[in-house]
Amino acid sequence: MMFDEQGSADVVAASFGGTPDARLREIITALVRHAHAVVKEVGLTPEEWAAGIRFLTETGLACDATRQEFILLSDVLGVSMLVETLANRAVGGLTESTVEGPFHLVTSPERALGDTIDEVGAGEPCLVTGRVVDAAGAPVAGASIDVWQADADGFYDVQRPAEVPSGNLRGRFTADGDGRFWFRSIVPRYYPIPTDGPVGRLLAATARHPYRAAHIHVEVTAPGVRRLTTHLFVEGSPYLDSDAVFGVKESLIRPFAPVDDPALAARHGLPNPFRHADFAITVRRS
Amino acid sequence: MMFDEQGSADVVAASFGGTPDARLREIITALVRHAHAVVKEVGLTPEEWAAGIRFLTETGLACDATRQEFILLSDVLGVSMLVETLANRAVGGLTESTVEGPFHLVTSPERALGDTIDEVGAGEPCLVTGRVVDAAGAPVAGASIDVWQADADGFYDVQRPAEVPSGNLRGRFTADGDGRFWFRSIVPRYYPIPTDGPVGRLLAATARHPYRAAHIHVEVTAPGVRRLTTHLFVEGSPYLDSDAVFGVKESLIRPFAPVDDPALAARHGLPNPFRHADFAITVRRS
Ligand SMILES: [Cu+2]
Ligand SMILES: [Fe+3]
Ligand SMILES: [Fe+3]
Repeated sequence: MMFDEQGSADVVAASFGGTPDARLREIITALVRHAHAVVKEVGLTPEEWAAGIRFLTETGLACDATRQEFILLSDVLGVSMLVETLANRAVGGLTESTVEGPFHLVTSPERALGDTIDEVGAGEPCLVTGRVVDAAGAPVAGASIDVWQADADGFYDVQRPAEVPSGNLRGRFTADGDGRFWFRSIVPRYYPIPTDGPVGRLLAATARHPYRAAHIHVEVTAPGVRRLTTHLFVEGSPYLDSDAVFGVKESLIRPFAPVDDPALAARHGLPNPFRHADFAITVRRS
Repeated sequence: MMFDEQGSADVVAASFGGTPDARLREIITALVRHAHAVVKEVGLTPEEWAAGIRFLTETGLACDATRQEFILLSDVLGVSMLVETLANRAVGGLTESTVEGPFHLVTSPERALGDTIDEVGAGEPCLVTGRVVDAAGAPVAGASIDVWQADADGFYDVQRPAEVPSGNLRGRFTADGDGRFWFRSIVPRYYPIPTDGPVGRLLAATARHPYRAAHIHVEVTAPGVRRLTTHLFVEGSPYLDSDAVFGVKESLIRPFAPVDDPALAARHGLPNPFRHADFAITVRRS
């Protein structure tokens, strides 16, 4: 079979027909067909193709040990979120998942229930409480809850290594026998994804903002339970309806409600008033 | 609009709705729709997505001043050939175009009509003749014909810089007043595209060979004429029906016919017998 415009995708797909791994064959065939469809649909010119090659090359060269520009590209194209959503279709009242994001770089320090994850002390104090249960409503005693978040200026510890101790605003908690967990923190701020690389230039060229709505990352693991990677979003945050990586799901937004209760504040070691968010989490037994 | 599985492409496409440049908006919207279609069609898993990110990253990191692995990827997926074909739809008997390929790195030395481009003298001697005309059949007097080719072992000069002079098997000729050109060379061999990078691993994983059918690159330019980038393929070469970059078009294959004619050989300064290919070229006045 020789190449021509009409049959281009067929010819190339056929060349992959001998791929031993059936799954790889399926994926590459779909890739070829849709790639050729894009080129034909828009009538891609050689100059535009060359610009695309340059963009991919710069994206690759922007990657190093601490930066993954291709994941960022996948994020802003909604591909990461789509893959995550397909992998974790929430059924029967399970808590929905969302993207892990690029800031789960360091292992969160182990902390005791009720501890604060804020080692700096700047920001609006808050109490986060929650309970991990399974689909039948039974508590997942001893579940591990890993949380990490940006500070009140929108930065993660790894972005300010000179000013902030590593592990700040991160913590791993072990739920009690009733599946409950609670800890102190500050209210996170919305923040921009990195904009100083090719993906940032893409956002600028397309008049898109780089901001993520304010959130606390939450990862729940426990023996016999499917891992849940999700966010607790701050109700009222800017960008909830235009998150740069499409990570927001309605079901994951919670009020960080103001609380004026000196006795409760004192019991938790918090200044009064403070804010309080509760995150009930339902996971799937596997 | 918030993200969900059904509407994922719509939500992401809408985020690009404010792109000031209408053409960029069109291209990125098509990219988003087809990318989401691929992910859904195959049900891409997070592990497969991560493998894809790794592949793209390695492809980017393989690029440097003398190597363009993303172009190679585009080549083996038939995308380069499709873009080239769309840009140069041959109508009304024009000579078809094909990919330029990665070996047009050095400027070909100027040579006189009838000269040899073979500075080494290993291989089967051949005579290449041709004539450049326009769609009306009128000669393109003084057209510039740039040719470059692999040697009898399948290597370009730039691949063996220690053994072969730069410019070997390359030449720029100026057609005579009747649009005619002729030069001496050796019959090129088929050759593999570079296989020591990510694209080579992709070919291996998909049981595809890396070979290109034997060819001489030909680029024709002249004032008032649209540039033509094409190949002269050697009839009977292996891989004509499975060229690794899909560059072969039936209309570009020519016999390299054996000639036993001592007088003709002597006239051209060739040993007898030799081989002869004739390439009639029709270009478009612009
Ligand atoms: Cu498609
Ligand atoms: Fe985050
Ligand atoms: Fe070549």
